[in-house]
Amino acid sequence: MIDQLIKKIKEMDNATVVGLDPRLNFIPSFIKDASYAKYGKTLQGAANAFYEFNKEIIDNIYDLVPAVKPQIAMYEQYGIHGLNAYLQTINYAKEKGLIVIGDIKRSDIASTALAYSNGHIGRVKIEDELIEVYKEDFITLNPYLGYDSIEPYIGNCNAYDKGLFVLVKTSNPNSGEIQDLEVDGEKIYEKVGKLVANWGEKAMGELGYSRVGAVVGATYPKQSKDLRKIMPKTFFLVPGYGAQGATAEDLSGCFSKDGLGAIVNSSRGIIAAYTKEDYSKMFKAEEFGKAARQAVINMRDDLNRVR
Amino acid sequence: MIDQLIKKIKEMDNATVVGLDPRLNFIPSFIKDASYAKYGKTLQGAANAFYEFNKEIIDNIYDLVPAVKPQIAMYEQYGIHGLNAYLQTINYAKEKGLIVIGDIKRSDIASTALAYSNGHIGRVKIEDELIEVYKEDFITLNPYLGYDSIEPYIGNCNAYDKGLFVLVKTSNPNSGEIQDLEVDGEKIYEKVGKLVANWGEKAMGELGYSRVGAVVGATYPKQSKDLRKIMPKTFFLVPGYGAQGATAEDLSGCFSKDGLGAIVNSSRGIIAAYTKEDYSKMFKAEEFGKAARQAVINMRDDLNRVR
Repeated sequence: MIDQLIKKIKEMDNATVVGLDPRLNFIPSFIKDASYAKYGKTLQGAANAFYEFNKEIIDNIYDLVPAVKPQIAMYEQYGIHGLNAYLQTINYAKEKGLIVIGDIKRSDIASTALAYSNGHIGRVKIEDELIEVYKEDFITLNPYLGYDSIEPYIGNCNAYDKGLFVLVKTSNPNSGEIQDLEVDGEKIYEKVGKLVANWGEKAMGELGYSRVGAVVGATYPKQSKDLRKIMPKTFFLVPGYGAQGATAEDLSGCFSKDGLGAIVNSSRGIIAAYTKEDYSKMFKAEEFGKAARQAVINMRDDLNRVR
Repeated sequence: MIDQLIKKIKEMDNATVVGLDPRLNFIPSFIKDASYAKYGKTLQGAANAFYEFNKEIIDNIYDLVPAVKPQIAMYEQYGIHGLNAYLQTINYAKEKGLIVIGDIKRSDIASTALAYSNGHIGRVKIEDELIEVYKEDFITLNPYLGYDSIEPYIGNCNAYDKGLFVLVKTSNPNSGEIQDLEVDGEKIYEKVGKLVANWGEKAMGELGYSRVGAVVGATYPKQSKDLRKIMPKTFFLVPGYGAQGATAEDLSGCFSKDGLGAIVNSSRGIIAAYTKEDYSKMFKAEEFGKAARQAVINMRDDLNRVR
């Protein structure tokens, strides 16, 4: 799947990932009202509004971007209806040919990790039946528990050609509290970066990058540049562009010399573009999908300046 | 809720938590067959077998233990049916008066963490409706992203009297890979322990312990003893007893002088007791609930020797 991701980035000349993290406060009223009319102001009403919103976004961007990244928390908060919208969104995105990165950031010990792994990127076994459940192409993971919490995913990555992005240096303001602590002259995120690169050797793709990638925040330009050098075969998933404040220049160090090596996520900056001043002049709320499309084009061109 | 947990531990003279982590390979055939007859060898068939199994376990232990800890991964792997069994299990356990610790180990940046927090221990807001979704009393969290990834839970802890257990030193074999790295003469788990203790000051209960607890593995006796000293007001959730190899002596350092300060989890050791040599002589598969009850009594007495 890492090879397919690289091919699609080249084909579309675009390293943008659209984060599908809907929130009720920016879903247009006409979608919410229709959903509430059907299901009430309930978990199902909210979840269905998310799915309707996502479909329109996907319809408007699937031919421009290699991948989408639904954030499971947004769906999980609404219980089984929310999770259903998450699954529907994944199916719809895949039908449209998009690669799906499930932003789940799970972490647990080996036998439990295997349950997450089988459910999300492998197959669950129910007696003699093997069932594919979530069908994400990539998922994100948290490395705090060490290698035996990651290993159960690597088998499924190789068996089913799936991929991982393991948190190394996150984009949030307090990420340094643990990640920037210094051990023998080296920061924790560098230590973790080396571990992730090492784990990745067990799951190499054909095009020079591993199926085990890293999450590296755009909001920390120096750190991401250092990590790029430490982890030459590791693909980066880069959050923090746009709404979180990072510019294309800030994240330019995440790319390799070949202009590959990273995909950059934007969520609200794209899917809620129609609420922003620049776009709201051009697009009505009903045209939120078109606004998202324009935001993708603008982001693509902005990233292409620096990679 | 931390105060209620302490009261229940005293009342029952028991610091045992029963981990509700069912697996198809130890659920008795008569439960699985009945479920498959209704729903087929499907996700729903497996999930329903989990719920039926859990009900029988709960019926046999609710008067002996203060709390249960369902591991969400076991349920999440089966999609919406699995999640439904997780929610049903929580409801059933609470009806029986048990405190529920949702072992979710989530980690994400602030705005996303708030979605998890509202869904699991707070309320989600759908227009003018506030809805309680998962209803766990405590949840577990991963601290790798720093304080702004934990803060969104602390508000809900105080507003709704809920609690957290943040991973500090986990019980798995590779937990030292990151957690044991040394920074200025201090291990990462000690640094994290101090952070968690500090965060906990913002959410103190009435009985001397914080609503923000810590996960400290029983498999590392020296480390847990050190952490007990560093974090005197922090309640520990202690995994690793039994199936993972730790004895009561190993985890004795997790308790405070008052014999409180820790609850100890056992999952397979209790819920799959009927499959183990000692118990299988006394209990038939149909009596797996009674075997679990006996295993709880044995564990209670074993822990009470050392606390």
